[in-house]
Amino acid sequence: STLSAARAQPGSRVIAVAAVLPAGGCGERMGVPTPKQFCPILERPLISYTLQALERVYWIKDIVVAVTRENMGAMRNIIQKYQHTRISLVEAGETRHRSIFNGLKALAKDQPDTQLSKPEVVIIHDAVRPFVEEDVLLKVVAAAKEHGAAGAIRPLVSTVISPSADGCLEISLERARHRASEMPQAFLFDVIYEAYRQCSDYDLEFGTECLHLALKYSHTKAKLVEGPPDLWKVTYKRDLYAAESIIKERISHAVCVVMDPKQDKEPVDHFLEALKNELNDVKIESREPGQAGRDIQQSNLEQCYNFVSMNIMMSDFQETRKLLHMLEESNLSILYPVVVVSVHFFDFKLVPLSQKMESLMWIRESAKEMKKRNILLFGLIIDYSQGEQKLQESLRQGAIIIASLIKERSSALVGQLLVA
Amino acid sequence: STLSAARAQPGSRVIAVAAVLPAGGCGERMGVPTPKQFCPILERPLISYTLQALERVYWIKDIVVAVTRENMGAMRNIIQKYQHTRISLVEAGETRHRSIFNGLKALAKDQPDTQLSKPEVVIIHDAVRPFVEEDVLLKVVAAAKEHGAAGAIRPLVSTVISPSADGCLEISLERARHRASEMPQAFLFDVIYEAYRQCSDYDLEFGTECLHLALKYSHTKAKLVEGPPDLWKVTYKRDLYAAESIIKERISHAVCVVMDPKQDKEPVDHFLEALKNELNDVKIESREPGQAGRDIQQSNLEQCYNFVSMNIMMSDFQETRKLLHMLEESNLSILYPVVVVSVHFFDFKLVPLSQKMESLMWIRESAKEMKKRNILLFGLIIDYSQGEQKLQESLRQGAIIIASLIKERSSALVGQLLVA
Ligand SMILES: [Mg+2]
Ligand SMILES: [Mg+2]
Repeated sequence: STLSAARAQPGSRVIAVAAVLPAGGCGERMGVPTPKQFCPILERPLISYTLQALERVYWIKDIVVAVTRENMGAMRNIIQKYQHTRISLVEAGETRHRSIFNGLKALAKDQPDTQLSKPEVVIIHDAVRPFVEEDVLLKVVAAAKEHGAAGAIRPLVSTVISPSADGCLEISLERARHRASEMPQAFLFDVIYEAYRQCSDYDLEFGTECLHLALKYSHTKAKLVEGPPDLWKVTYKRDLYAAESIIKERISHAVCVVMDPKQDKEPVDHFLEALKNELNDVKIESREPGQAGRDIQQSNLEQCYNFVSMNIMMSDFQETRKLLHMLEESNLSILYPVVVVSVHFFDFKLVPLSQKMESLMWIRESAKEMKKRNILLFGLIIDYSQGEQKLQESLRQGAIIIASLIKERSSALVGQLLVA
Repeated sequence: STLSAARAQPGSRVIAVAAVLPAGGCGERMGVPTPKQFCPILERPLISYTLQALERVYWIKDIVVAVTRENMGAMRNIIQKYQHTRISLVEAGETRHRSIFNGLKALAKDQPDTQLSKPEVVIIHDAVRPFVEEDVLLKVVAAAKEHGAAGAIRPLVSTVISPSADGCLEISLERARHRASEMPQAFLFDVIYEAYRQCSDYDLEFGTECLHLALKYSHTKAKLVEGPPDLWKVTYKRDLYAAESIIKERISHAVCVVMDPKQDKEPVDHFLEALKNELNDVKIESREPGQAGRDIQQSNLEQCYNFVSMNIMMSDFQETRKLLHMLEESNLSILYPVVVVSVHFFDFKLVPLSQKMESLMWIRESAKEMKKRNILLFGLIIDYSQGEQKLQESLRQGAIIIASLIKERSSALVGQLLVA
């Protein structure tokens, strides 16, 4: 496509791209008091996930978010807490179209108090579509550059019908000949800005479709780009449930197992094998503590939010302490809760029960502290003195427990010492 | 409405109603190998939830399910395992319309080997819309009786557009003047059966809309009935996630706390208070074991899938044993996994650690057995010898843990002895 070609050839001109996000909606469909863009998923507001998705795309220079006056403070807190960058806020209008228009005005330098510069292409996206990927953004921007306007579409799931005045079926549309218009959309800035400047109050109040305004007022036929299913709009409560499950799944695909190489390798190797059997879609990497520390600092492990620290025949939690220290120093838990499972191989015949109770207390107290930093600490005990067959069963059970702790990410159970 | 009036006046004629469920689809949209109607939610196939929703409606006399020949055995197992009744199976056709037609033929007694009788009104529903309620079924059946045909509709979430041959925007439909056609739909049997008999092979191959067939071939304009959002069709993987969360939420709204009245009431009362604070949307009822047993037998507790048994200063799990015995005798865990939290108030200063380890072992072993019966058993210890303030904190923590166990219903953690 045009853009990736531009990236591949440093000599050619790079397109200036900005994005506008209308986020002024009040979420009446959701059946909850909080506007849906501010509903928490893993305790972080939905809109923060959408901003993160746009920020990941380095060639989007500015992101203009339109929020209502009453939510302006909350939005500033979100930007600060989750360290978002390149965001400018404008006040939302009464309708979605008015909010978008306000965002465009800010980019057009019609307002004196911003440092934004007019982009060549502007993306319009929804605050409640958090799973937008660079690929589809690239496609709509390239198509907008060529055609003046472009938008993502999806096949229809239901047949669309047109009711008569008395509520009966008048026309049923052929499903194959129609599409659902989704977001993101992209426009040559002048095309969409002129359309908004020329359109009627009725359009601004009751219109729903930016592509339609570009067609009607700028005589620009939008190019339609087939998008992936994850572009769907979080509309109902069930969509929040779905979004939470998708996010949990995405941060569960990698596990980092940390151990000191001076420890006995045999139990670790057996356990790694059990983990690999249980978590068969999950990438499992084992690291030495120092290596893990460097990885976290250098963001090599940026995508890993799950850690298993192996403590063999020790009661002082040395490996877990080191790991927690490194995680505290890093920024890893700002965006997602990080799961840490402290695994303890004990010889139950040698270690007195009182010592195990002390372990329990240490895990409990540390977990309370760590939870404040969005790090979820769990303990897992494996009796290493069992016979071969029982030990195998315990290792398998331990792997099942770890898979579940990673998948559920339940903060209510932090500090528990589980037994495999 | 007509039907509820019929129920209120026993003298008036009751309409004979049957339902047809096409379930022959192969689920290519889901991105998973299993057809979506057979995807498990809490280990039970999606279609079983839909059958359950229809069975709850006593005035639906027969439910005809169309499944492919290769899934016929699996479907029979589902009917047996989950004790579905009033179900007849027919072989699915190559397309959705052919499957529905096969179901209608069975009801029309065109096939010699069934005992079905021709209904006055037939409901057509999807196997992948498990959350259909009696209310909307009643509405479409009453409207079908009056108008000949009726179908549930929903507002459009996205604008619908019509692309030109070169993939550009041709027409954007006014969102407010269109609706998504959903299920259930209902028809006078003769109206829809004649429509299917007369329609072309092209309709049977490529058509999507039963209402359209009724209009085209039986000249019957369907009445459109506004349905609730939960009617949506489980189409993508995210819809399975959403369905699982909705089902988990629905079976988490009630908790039954079981205790012997001869036990010390004080800790129980304090704990009930903490539970009520934490689970503020949840109905909490406390029962004596005998009473709970009668309730389960008589299905007064049909809607309760969560039990907390209180064992005060005892180490023999008397209350929990009684409760588990009653649950085993009942059919409660056939449809949903039942959560049992065995709560133990110990005086940590008096009870030796070795006894607690024995408790752990009992919970672990019992949990393994119970899991086979779809009963998820967890242990929860509260140190009753703590000072007032610490005890309050433990009670609150215990309530948080119970809320989480009920919400997550994680089978990986059964048999664990958690500490509040
Ligand atoms: Mg400006
Ligand atoms: Mg028959």
